[in-house]
Amino acid sequence: MRLYDYLPSGNSYKVRWVAAHLGLDYTHIDVDIHKGDTQTAEFLALNPAGQIPLLALDDGKTLAESNAIICYLADGSDLVPTDSYAHAKMLQWQFWEQYRHEPAIAVARYICNYDRETRADELAQLMPKGDAALAMMDAHLKERDWFVGDRCSLADVSLYAYTHVADEGGFDLSAYSSVQAWLTRFSAQDNHIAITDKPAA
Amino acid sequence: MRLYDYLPSGNSYKVRWVAAHLGLDYTHIDVDIHKGDTQTAEFLALNPAGQIPLLALDDGKTLAESNAIICYLADGSDLVPTDSYAHAKMLQWQFWEQYRHEPAIAVARYICNYDRETRADELAQLMPKGDAALAMMDAHLKERDWFVGDRCSLADVSLYAYTHVADEGGFDLSAYSSVQAWLTRFSAQDNHIAITDKPAA
Repeated sequence: MRLYDYLPSGNSYKVRWVAAHLGLDYTHIDVDIHKGDTQTAEFLALNPAGQIPLLALDDGKTLAESNAIICYLADGSDLVPTDSYAHAKMLQWQFWEQYRHEPAIAVARYICNYDRETRADELAQLMPKGDAALAMMDAHLKERDWFVGDRCSLADVSLYAYTHVADEGGFDLSAYSSVQAWLTRFSAQDNHIAITDKPAA
Repeated sequence: MRLYDYLPSGNSYKVRWVAAHLGLDYTHIDVDIHKGDTQTAEFLALNPAGQIPLLALDDGKTLAESNAIICYLADGSDLVPTDSYAHAKMLQWQFWEQYRHEPAIAVARYICNYDRETRADELAQLMPKGDAALAMMDAHLKERDWFVGDRCSLADVSLYAYTHVADEGGFDLSAYSSVQAWLTRFSAQDNHIAITDKPAA
């Protein structure tokens, strides 16, 4: 299978992290989102949403949306709870991540890295939203090691991706001690990779 | 089980529609989002995200995020593909709905209904985003009756919820003939309910 990817992307990192954790082989294809590589006719034929990550299977089928891709890759693994309710709680945090966390924290990071001067007002609006998301995570983690159940699940993977680089968006993680402890716990796992790590060619 | 709900909410409607389709019994609890009912200490203890829909099970467990709730309720039913790839495609469309569709189309509808005067600039920015989402759906449905496979799945439920009331947000659905045909197909199913229908007390 092939992963169309942009290395600084936290959404793509989720997929690379899961593949590394599970020891899955794939071909990594760099896509430069700043050069319009996701808006070409060729790429839009693979993903009409014009976004990475995009997984292309060997039979030609494609899969988009980072959280859907990792659900597919990790199906049946130790990253996915088998209990129906725990599985739904995992999905709850993944949907929350895409609705309330990523649009604030990942977008703030993007603006700080690339668009700080032209999107300053938008950035100011995102900060309290991102802090609210971090505060909700911190409260949840006060009495738990992992977001769902007693082991790392895809909920943790989805939330780790942009939380651990939230400082690049101007967020001060020192205010969130339970989140910090969880970040350390997450990165101590076997086969952990950093956000810009990719498999050897 | 109890569903904390606001009847005009498309996100809540997903849950009511699935429950009606599957013949599930539950107690419906009206929550007025305009009176701050989702921001009380009592409600935040149930859902720290301060949002409806919120499902409370008889054993006290809770579940938030509309798409996670319907995945839980419909687990094992005809609304959820059993094939691993088809299941992931269903999730792909559900994550896309929460990231690209709902934040444009549902928010435009909300502004048109309640905040048109104070949020006119925001509404203007949402219109092209909503139209892009509708165009992507229309292109996908040109060659298919349903979003995934050959029957209605939760992908269709998630996308129907706010698409069928997109006109309330100022979107002109007449430009999207395949979407219109799909809306008709969806609403012709057995046990279909309208967005503000709730179970008898």
